[in-house]
Amino acid sequence: MRVPADATLADIGEFGLVDALSGIYAQSERVLVGPGDDAAVVSFPDGRVMVSTDVLVESRHFRRDWAEALDIGHRVAAANLSDVNAMGGRAVALTVGLGAPPSLPVAWALDLARGIAEESGLVGASVVGGDLTAADQVVVSVAVLGEGSGPPVLRSGARPGDVVAIAGRQGWAAGGLAVLTRGFRSPRALVEAYRRPQPPYDAGPEAAAAGATAMIDVSDGLLADVGHLARASGVAVDLAGDRFEVAEPLHAVGAALGADPLGFVLTGGDDHSLVATFVAGSSPPAGWRVVGEVREGEGVTVDGVPPHGPGGHTHF
Amino acid sequence: MRVPADATLADIGEFGLVDALSGIYAQSERVLVGPGDDAAVVSFPDGRVMVSTDVLVESRHFRRDWAEALDIGHRVAAANLSDVNAMGGRAVALTVGLGAPPSLPVAWALDLARGIAEESGLVGASVVGGDLTAADQVVVSVAVLGEGSGPPVLRSGARPGDVVAIAGRQGWAAGGLAVLTRGFRSPRALVEAYRRPQPPYDAGPEAAAAGATAMIDVSDGLLADVGHLARASGVAVDLAGDRFEVAEPLHAVGAALGADPLGFVLTGGDDHSLVATFVAGSSPPAGWRVVGEVREGEGVTVDGVPPHGPGGHTHF
Repeated sequence: MRVPADATLADIGEFGLVDALSGIYAQSERVLVGPGDDAAVVSFPDGRVMVSTDVLVESRHFRRDWAEALDIGHRVAAANLSDVNAMGGRAVALTVGLGAPPSLPVAWALDLARGIAEESGLVGASVVGGDLTAADQVVVSVAVLGEGSGPPVLRSGARPGDVVAIAGRQGWAAGGLAVLTRGFRSPRALVEAYRRPQPPYDAGPEAAAAGATAMIDVSDGLLADVGHLARASGVAVDLAGDRFEVAEPLHAVGAALGADPLGFVLTGGDDHSLVATFVAGSSPPAGWRVVGEVREGEGVTVDGVPPHGPGGHTHF
Repeated sequence: MRVPADATLADIGEFGLVDALSGIYAQSERVLVGPGDDAAVVSFPDGRVMVSTDVLVESRHFRRDWAEALDIGHRVAAANLSDVNAMGGRAVALTVGLGAPPSLPVAWALDLARGIAEESGLVGASVVGGDLTAADQVVVSVAVLGEGSGPPVLRSGARPGDVVAIAGRQGWAAGGLAVLTRGFRSPRALVEAYRRPQPPYDAGPEAAAAGATAMIDVSDGLLADVGHLARASGVAVDLAGDRFEVAEPLHAVGAALGADPLGFVLTGGDDHSLVATFVAGSSPPAGWRVVGEVREGEGVTVDGVPPHGPGGHTHF
């Protein structure tokens, strides 16, 4: 179906959009029944299915004036794919629910879908179904199904003595957000990192294969998420401030804003890096950087000291 | 955790709600990893997973002044469980995403969860994960995972000569909605049917086992959904107006509103009844009522005549 360049959802309706989406969402051979029926059917020969969901709301999680729909699609998909990554798995299929004002341009909805499809394609996952409904603000709700090649890596398996390691960029998106919040558009690398994260999709399965004892996706903020892992495992974690990689542009933004650049790294939550623990003495796979250790006790410290200030993002 | 009776989501926060929910969402033995990690893990020994999603938005799909949160939870779950039912399957697990204003009473959110848990419990399915985020209006997004005991029943398998049959109540919820829209609260049976549908959860798997050639969940309106089935199958469907059961309270509402009670049956879409086709000469399982037949051609007719007026619900 050809969609006029300035058409809105109200112009083409639910079924018009579904038609247009069918050309965007490619189906892998794992999809036995694709979009268009009451439910899709996906093959999981292993018999175990990982499932997670994330809801992203306009003006809370994204702003249409700060990012293109294509980038927002990448972000929405990344947030979900990363949850499977953090279990040591790979995503296989997603569903996408879209609530939107009828005045939303069709072109925006299609670019959103392209972004979701592109990001999902990085791990070979297919969008197999969805729902479209009218809503006052744009709400994108994704559920993801994935699989592991071994047992899932939980948050609760860290033991005193384990080393703590991180994979993926950390703090970049928070730096980009700080810049955008103040009305700037550079450093470009950070703004781009906020608009389109690059989660380390290979790092989760590789950590699982290397025997990671616990793992979590950094999405609420590094300190907050390490805290979740510590609490679930019943342990304390001490991080070494000088072990973290503080990217060059973060130093520039820190200097410009009078902020400690390590702060972006410790509290940022939109890069979808992974934190995992490995038994003492083992060396984590390539791509993982040791940044701390697991101890008896509870809570998270940096260089032995409890961090002050907000440790992450809370939704209310 | 004890939650004060008048607490709002802003008072207890995301993690407070998650804590409170853990006492509501029971986990079946199919759940290998339950809520609380980056993803849940669910067992599907058959290796094939049905997946579907539905997003329900306040003031579009429900009104907090027309129904209790408990009932809305039942409706939200029913809408999703019914999609699996329409494939001939049974739901195993759900995820629930909630977007809500921070002023939303915690008690409302917990009652919503209880409704979802109760309805899911009817088929033995567990809520295994979710997400909570701030939003301007209440948005409930559910994804459901299910399984069949045989091949899924698609919309596309109807062939000329097949009989068309329906299972479950049809038109009741539409009658209830018509009453509520006009500010009335009776007939009570219809209002209750709108508030809490009773989808025929056994009818889907039984139809699949009996060799149904096609099946669909009635959610957009009977004529609209039969139209979807006809289009997917490349056939026409003729319905016999006098074969439908028009419930006694629908006659009363029709008389009061000057409307044809059969109209509620033909255009209603909130009962989550099922329509299926079976090969000619076969008799559908108990609980199914033959209401028409499949013919060569396209479109839906009632007693050989195309219906006039709106045939169902569109979202824009």
